[in-house]
Amino acid sequence: MANSAWSEKVLRLLRRMNNFYLPVSNRENCLRFKIGEAQIGWIPPHVASLLERFPEVFSPPHDGAVSLCHSLDSYEKRSEAMDAVLQTLRQEGSLPCLKGWRDEKYSVMPKFSDPPLMWIERAATCLFGVKQYGVHLNGYTVSSSGEVSMWLARRSPTKQTYPGLLDNVAAGGLSAGFSIKQTLVKECQEEACIPAAIAEKACPVTTVSYTYEDEEGVYAETQFVFDLELPLDFKPIIGDKEVQEFYLLSMDKVKDLLATEDFKPNCAMVVLDFLIRHSFIEPDTVPCYQEFVAGLHQTLE
Amino acid sequence: MANSAWSEKVLRLLRRMNNFYLPVSNRENCLRFKIGEAQIGWIPPHVASLLERFPEVFSPPHDGAVSLCHSLDSYEKRSEAMDAVLQTLRQEGSLPCLKGWRDEKYSVMPKFSDPPLMWIERAATCLFGVKQYGVHLNGYTVSSSGEVSMWLARRSPTKQTYPGLLDNVAAGGLSAGFSIKQTLVKECQEEACIPAAIAEKACPVTTVSYTYEDEEGVYAETQFVFDLELPLDFKPIIGDKEVQEFYLLSMDKVKDLLATEDFKPNCAMVVLDFLIRHSFIEPDTVPCYQEFVAGLHQTLE
Repeated sequence: MANSAWSEKVLRLLRRMNNFYLPVSNRENCLRFKIGEAQIGWIPPHVASLLERFPEVFSPPHDGAVSLCHSLDSYEKRSEAMDAVLQTLRQEGSLPCLKGWRDEKYSVMPKFSDPPLMWIERAATCLFGVKQYGVHLNGYTVSSSGEVSMWLARRSPTKQTYPGLLDNVAAGGLSAGFSIKQTLVKECQEEACIPAAIAEKACPVTTVSYTYEDEEGVYAETQFVFDLELPLDFKPIIGDKEVQEFYLLSMDKVKDLLATEDFKPNCAMVVLDFLIRHSFIEPDTVPCYQEFVAGLHQTLE
Repeated sequence: MANSAWSEKVLRLLRRMNNFYLPVSNRENCLRFKIGEAQIGWIPPHVASLLERFPEVFSPPHDGAVSLCHSLDSYEKRSEAMDAVLQTLRQEGSLPCLKGWRDEKYSVMPKFSDPPLMWIERAATCLFGVKQYGVHLNGYTVSSSGEVSMWLARRSPTKQTYPGLLDNVAAGGLSAGFSIKQTLVKECQEEACIPAAIAEKACPVTTVSYTYEDEEGVYAETQFVFDLELPLDFKPIIGDKEVQEFYLLSMDKVKDLLATEDFKPNCAMVVLDFLIRHSFIEPDTVPCYQEFVAGLHQTLE
């Protein structure tokens, strides 16, 4: 594919994954979600109207913001009150995302370096636009002649989100109580049967951050990215059935696939970042190189 | 130095280099600088008032913006008109930055991928807050046991900007008409006597972007970053007298220096990015890791 057509498609992907920043987004109609003085997310209007029924948990909208009630003055109280509200809404069945309830607790904090203020069920994070953190692994090989290839996974056709699309060889959300590296090693084992002795060698290299909205809510995410050079004789094996197949592909092929609709979008971003860091694309031949880098690291702060 | 004290100092550097984004910045008092419909910079109030004397070049402020007059309808006409204004202001001597006139033509374009709309003298870019592009090289060595060290330069005590501070082994601004890689190879030769045969092997790995203001103007910059593993027996040699000395330092030492005032600030950012990409700092032990990445890639778009 010609560089300009390829670049245009990749830029479109980055814009879609950052559509919450666009002037046409719903951002102005969203309410800031606050605990005390700290903003921890964005609440879309259709969710805000549902929350009015829980005045013991959410104070009424004020100055463009909804706050958790001050009486909820501890991590435990906030988490329990939020969970009770979400269980009620889940039973009522009007919010499709809650049908994907996972029983996975996500920590909520204003910034990653802050102590968590509460936990929230993973499936509900988009209703409050709270930041989600995860890990993604670029698993690659280098042949004796120096040629780089990348392992990619194809998601199971029965997976709840993005069924059948291409994915990084291992990835997962950061649950409350797990370190970043622990999460990475766990996901490597569960999803691709990469033994801990190999997975431990993965190198943290950057983060990829983006914020998008859809009809259900706001997705503000940061992925901690790791690179892992896998032994040439190692083959990932399907672990927890979230994957249907693994492929080892040349970087040219991987680059072409980025401009198709075949990739789970945030995984395409992680791969784009790999292409940049490993000089598979160059700024003199890809004129929007700097817009690529900017689009991979958008944050709302 | 303990990780938390080190992180706090590095975060402070990133905030300073992005102070134009802070709520306390002068941004609200700046006028957008436009050519046609495209914004190409920011004009501080003290500059805007000087431009009123040139109504044949700048249309009067309207809707928070100053535009180049529509009659200047070509690259050449715009560049010549701007140059004439700047030569006048330079002779009057009221703008200190113009005392550092360099006779270096910088291209002005809304985005890097757009065709240039005009050129402007390098020393004047901050008066109009137009984006500047440059190249920076991380020159490093890997010992036989795998230990990484980095070459750093100390700037000459007589250099106009940031005299005596630590710098990357080679760096420079992107002048009109030169490619990014050409600029890098040229700077490698001029500043550190790195022969083209070695410099050509430098790998483009990312960009570092930031916007800061001071009493003179607005500095919106993007640096194209290259990594180059230098041979163990190679030593940079002082080229064009912009450098007084080169040092080969362990990464621990380089990391410590980042938290001092001894580094030219944008070079410290380039080195911080190197530390992240090469896993010398890890997200589990440096909690503001993601804020570091975000601070290295701020853009105004």
